[in-house]
Amino acid sequence: MSVGEGNSAYGRKAFKRSRSHFADRITVDGRDGWPVEPGRYRLVVSRACPWASRAVISRRLLGLEDALSMAVADPIQDDRSWRFTLDPDGRDPVLGIRFLKEAYDARESDYPGGVSVPAVVDVPSGELVTNDHQRLTLDLATEWTDLHRAGAPDLYPEALRDEIDAVMAEVYQDVNNGVYRAGFATGQEEYEEACAGVFRRLEALSERLARQRYLVGETVTEADIRLFTTLVRFDPVYHGHFKCNRWKLAEDRVLWAYARDLFQTPGFGDTVDFDHIKQHYYQVHTGINPTAIVPLGPDLAGWLTPHGREELGGSPFGDGTPPGPVGTT
Amino acid sequence: MSVGEGNSAYGRKAFKRSRSHFADRITVDGRDGWPVEPGRYRLVVSRACPWASRAVISRRLLGLEDALSMAVADPIQDDRSWRFTLDPDGRDPVLGIRFLKEAYDARESDYPGGVSVPAVVDVPSGELVTNDHQRLTLDLATEWTDLHRAGAPDLYPEALRDEIDAVMAEVYQDVNNGVYRAGFATGQEEYEEACAGVFRRLEALSERLARQRYLVGETVTEADIRLFTTLVRFDPVYHGHFKCNRWKLAEDRVLWAYARDLFQTPGFGDTVDFDHIKQHYYQVHTGINPTAIVPLGPDLAGWLTPHGREELGGSPFGDGTPPGPVGTT
Repeated sequence: MSVGEGNSAYGRKAFKRSRSHFADRITVDGRDGWPVEPGRYRLVVSRACPWASRAVISRRLLGLEDALSMAVADPIQDDRSWRFTLDPDGRDPVLGIRFLKEAYDARESDYPGGVSVPAVVDVPSGELVTNDHQRLTLDLATEWTDLHRAGAPDLYPEALRDEIDAVMAEVYQDVNNGVYRAGFATGQEEYEEACAGVFRRLEALSERLARQRYLVGETVTEADIRLFTTLVRFDPVYHGHFKCNRWKLAEDRVLWAYARDLFQTPGFGDTVDFDHIKQHYYQVHTGINPTAIVPLGPDLAGWLTPHGREELGGSPFGDGTPPGPVGTT
Repeated sequence: MSVGEGNSAYGRKAFKRSRSHFADRITVDGRDGWPVEPGRYRLVVSRACPWASRAVISRRLLGLEDALSMAVADPIQDDRSWRFTLDPDGRDPVLGIRFLKEAYDARESDYPGGVSVPAVVDVPSGELVTNDHQRLTLDLATEWTDLHRAGAPDLYPEALRDEIDAVMAEVYQDVNNGVYRAGFATGQEEYEEACAGVFRRLEALSERLARQRYLVGETVTEADIRLFTTLVRFDPVYHGHFKCNRWKLAEDRVLWAYARDLFQTPGFGDTVDFDHIKQHYYQVHTGINPTAIVPLGPDLAGWLTPHGREELGGSPFGDGTPPGPVGTT
């Protein structure tokens, strides 16, 4: 849910992530008015955004590419919101709009809040359905099952939900959102508390992951997806730009191997665009990077080196299979 | 020669380090009017500043503590220049001044340039003698020899000067000053050129130092001092704050061992104050760190781990001896 937080965060006492305003759910029974239907909805993402990237990964792992099409916004949003400037004529070819805000306006006129990704838009009406990043991927995993590919993994297995939810809550508070609280802190104390929390949690996760290949159970789950999208951004942006610099991910043997293992798993690394990530953070947050200069580092060669995590047991997709090659989007 | 470059650098096309205006030399023959004399001069430094830290190290290695007293400025200078706010009543106890600028003014009224450290002040007159950081340490090594301690090393041996000068020129251009050109760049291209130059040179130095313990010859020389003062600041400030983030020093096996070897050699690590370093860069350069927040990292524990460089031969002080314990300043 990237809404250009860098600029809007200033002038507040402490960085607070606002709740999603549009929280309709797309379900099998269509109880919010939005039934699961192939081809009806369009997922709008930025590859820069960790919250949107969860949905990009889930969509790949579950094989929902044909059922749920995807629009990729320019990594640099402007004051008119996320833009489709990567597309011909600067318009999304399916929705026909230039700015994501147009879908928000179609849903609710004069909505005063931020325009964030991920967003799901109803193609026939052009209306925003949801920007609830916390709920979206869980629904892809549990409501869209009829449209999953053969061999798709169960990313939110019923028997493990309590443990997955508990892990995700801690990871959200201290890591996913913790890096933002550190980076957008306006005072030393606020920063230090957030940064210390990030590393305390990462150290605990490192201990847990020294003994097991995945966060919960023997296969990839939603919990891994949510930790991965922060870890893959850690050295490129959070370490320097957000001052989470106790150590680099590459300096923690366990977490670095865990992140590489996922990165090398089909559906994870093939969704990552490091250029989009770096451009977005360093060029949009002029409140903490006034020059908007994008660093050359870090060296990315290490991501494809052997990780040795197979010996911990488990397998990414359990009885399922990996997703096929990446399609056009 | 830290003059609050962060702020003054903006508005210029590219960061250029100005030449020292006061370049008188203190020599045996006193040809500039300043003969070497014990107790006559006061060295003014900031422990934050890499250029000043060269002189702090040389003074320790050569045992000049009694002959040349030292004033340590607050790591945060203000618009009135470097301040003696760490001293009782905010005055240097020997010079009796509150700001280094007073010594500049005593020497030349209405000098419009920046006030930089290291500076040497003539105690009787209170006048600045020199702020020529490039010359100062060479003169400590070659003109102050009568006052050196017994067992002091030859930091600028005559037979090796051509090689030392050549190495130092490359290190100055690409590393010592290269990190500043990267950090104070106002445009992407300027930054990228500087940053690429930093790492090209560091890679070459890493190759050289894989084969030999010190940069030139078999013992510590001025060339090592000048590389060390940049390396010791690399992960704490240059990596994040100046965006020199291709890799951390701690990720280059050879340079990291080389830097630890020097750090653990008496006269090097015992001069380093990481708090002063971090406070200065992050709090003074509000042009690139508007929040003035000082990062918690990096973890410094690694500096005291074994480096294994002894096996390359050489010894830090050759036929000489290490300096004794650190005195009061």
